[in-house]
Amino acid sequence: MLKAEIIAVGSEMLTPFQIDTNSLWLTERLNALGIQLMLKTVVGDDAARLEEAIGDALRRSDLIVSTGGLGPTEDDITRQCFARVLQRRLVLRDEILAQIEARFQRRQVPMPAINARQAMVMEGATVLPNPNGTAPGMIVRQGNCTVVLLPGPPREMRPMFEAGVEPLLREQAGNLRLLRRKLSLFGLTESRTDELAAPVYTRFSNPSTTILVKNGTIELHLTALAQTEAEAERLLDELDGQLDEVLGDYLFSRRDETLAQVVGERLRLRHETLATAESCTGGLLAGRITETPGSSAYFREGLITYANEAKIARLGVPAALLEAHGAVSEEVACAMASGVRQLAGTTYGIGVTGIAGPDGGTPEKPVGLVYLALAEEHAVTARRFVFPGDRSFIRTLSVNSALDLLRRRIR
Amino acid sequence: MLKAEIIAVGSEMLTPFQIDTNSLWLTERLNALGIQLMLKTVVGDDAARLEEAIGDALRRSDLIVSTGGLGPTEDDITRQCFARVLQRRLVLRDEILAQIEARFQRRQVPMPAINARQAMVMEGATVLPNPNGTAPGMIVRQGNCTVVLLPGPPREMRPMFEAGVEPLLREQAGNLRLLRRKLSLFGLTESRTDELAAPVYTRFSNPSTTILVKNGTIELHLTALAQTEAEAERLLDELDGQLDEVLGDYLFSRRDETLAQVVGERLRLRHETLATAESCTGGLLAGRITETPGSSAYFREGLITYANEAKIARLGVPAALLEAHGAVSEEVACAMASGVRQLAGTTYGIGVTGIAGPDGGTPEKPVGLVYLALAEEHAVTARRFVFPGDRSFIRTLSVNSALDLLRRRIR
Repeated sequence: MLKAEIIAVGSEMLTPFQIDTNSLWLTERLNALGIQLMLKTVVGDDAARLEEAIGDALRRSDLIVSTGGLGPTEDDITRQCFARVLQRRLVLRDEILAQIEARFQRRQVPMPAINARQAMVMEGATVLPNPNGTAPGMIVRQGNCTVVLLPGPPREMRPMFEAGVEPLLREQAGNLRLLRRKLSLFGLTESRTDELAAPVYTRFSNPSTTILVKNGTIELHLTALAQTEAEAERLLDELDGQLDEVLGDYLFSRRDETLAQVVGERLRLRHETLATAESCTGGLLAGRITETPGSSAYFREGLITYANEAKIARLGVPAALLEAHGAVSEEVACAMASGVRQLAGTTYGIGVTGIAGPDGGTPEKPVGLVYLALAEEHAVTARRFVFPGDRSFIRTLSVNSALDLLRRRIR
Repeated sequence: MLKAEIIAVGSEMLTPFQIDTNSLWLTERLNALGIQLMLKTVVGDDAARLEEAIGDALRRSDLIVSTGGLGPTEDDITRQCFARVLQRRLVLRDEILAQIEARFQRRQVPMPAINARQAMVMEGATVLPNPNGTAPGMIVRQGNCTVVLLPGPPREMRPMFEAGVEPLLREQAGNLRLLRRKLSLFGLTESRTDELAAPVYTRFSNPSTTILVKNGTIELHLTALAQTEAEAERLLDELDGQLDEVLGDYLFSRRDETLAQVVGERLRLRHETLATAESCTGGLLAGRITETPGSSAYFREGLITYANEAKIARLGVPAALLEAHGAVSEEVACAMASGVRQLAGTTYGIGVTGIAGPDGGTPEKPVGLVYLALAEEHAVTARRFVFPGDRSFIRTLSVNSALDLLRRRIR
């Protein structure tokens, strides 16, 4: 398997405002050819650091793709730095200069003298024409390493890669295919997931496995490499099947779906309906449910009863219950769930009440304490959580846990 | 001026799915201290490459900040790699282990054995406590270089940097101060903003000005560099004062507040209250309002009347009105706003109805058509919008526009 590195050149990507996104697109294309990305560097107009990055990459990788820094100005240093590290001379190529001049002529603008710099090419390089800009790209073969220089603007970089780089890499990379599968889990911590999954996935070097956490949702990314797509699928299926046994019903999707999508799809298939009564999540639960197009098929309505009076007047939560147990209690969560279910005439009602903080916590009822309740025709079930984190994280975990409560009921 | 490098560790950032965004936040904070970012590296669980990156950075930079790879699993290699390059032993610190155990105890979950790895600290390192997670951070001084290890999750990384790293760097960085000010605008396009603002800001080289667009909100970032904070403030005030004249009441914050925060603060000061009735935004408007701690002082309740029956039964929207004008109409938006205001007994009621798509559009009522209404005691005002973009963008613009409608009423 070929190992690649990407070097993005440009001071603007070292500000708080802009990030290198070219590498995401390039990674997808490289992966599809069975080429693995090992490292990314972002560097500004700093010749010493750029040359060091090039030197490191040259020693340890099979492919270097650089983007940016091919412009006509003083601070476009990519050409010079690569030439120095690769110990190749830069030579002016007349036919490229002519193309650049022609491009300016078509726009009826005289070519600024500095643009001549863009016609400088490393000795022995294959030139990649740029139909969408002035800076041509280059490919150089140095020892065992292929070096590709591309311009920074995506609308120049992408067509150039597709036309001039991809065909060459396809030959070099051979027939390898890289496929990914994402398993989404909810209800486990990262470390508990790893305790369960590591004994399985460490037995496989292909597919490889990466664990990610996003808002309390755990993702296992499986990556398989094989000679054919069918073989890669088979490898994924084998690991996936074994993981499935240890992960059980914590696993809610293999198709990059959210909890809300999975729950929504189940409700739709079962012709069942849902209403929500929220306090601490303030509408976010309904907001997440209605993110999915077509959610009106199963979502009827939601009430955000932030004030106690609203819980009483709108949901029929008994004032005595609020008095006896407080708004944040299992009893009130259940009354909210039942109340909204009855009001809306739906199959299910969900109630959420909790303390999202930062204020309002007490020793008995700390910030993060959340009660979730799920009401059906003949039953109400409730769960108590103490979520970690700040207000936003507590609210997000509450929403996901509420969706998961329903998912487990209807899976 | 101190020179910094950021090393982000995590294989997930070498996939086409995820990018290192921590570095944007870190860059802003470093810049604010007058520290310049020279290079960023993203590396996976690849010890050889990570150690090479650390070694390079150590030789040439004054500060290394690494994020990620401090988790409890086998592929979290940051601790070990830094320890090897810095030639320091990793030692288990009992007091950190106790803190990690206590954290699991509070959540009433037993600590998995592998989490003990997170209590390993380099000899001579200052430990950075992690109130929001299990992995502590570290600071080590090696020769002339300060090395900072932070966890990857932003909600752990950010508070840790603010509490434990920023004060130290402020001492080291000396007197050059870089101050930014963010002017937040709503209701203008990016190009119209630039037409208004460019004649002003192009007269200044210090502060420099950058325009950014986020969810329909425009941000002008002003950056001033000076020997003292007071001088930088003075430079910002001068440009800001001139921009204020051309931007008028599109400008809603100079303090990085959201529209919801600005509106909430005004309501609080005026002792006024609010209730919401949402259709296409499905709870997101209330969700945004209640994002702000203490919002219960002015937000009473919200109704998500997704189904027509809910609009009729809950808000008293006349069935005849729905019949005559359709659910997505100025009339229904007004009836929703008045209905929820009356029901909740609040100063203001907001009504939102629209077509978020992707389906449900017609030639007369296309996807993106949204009516917003604001009800007060003796008046209801409504506005019609046709928002561009996908379902998510239309919902976000609807929420922001609803908040802006109220902001303009009570500013």
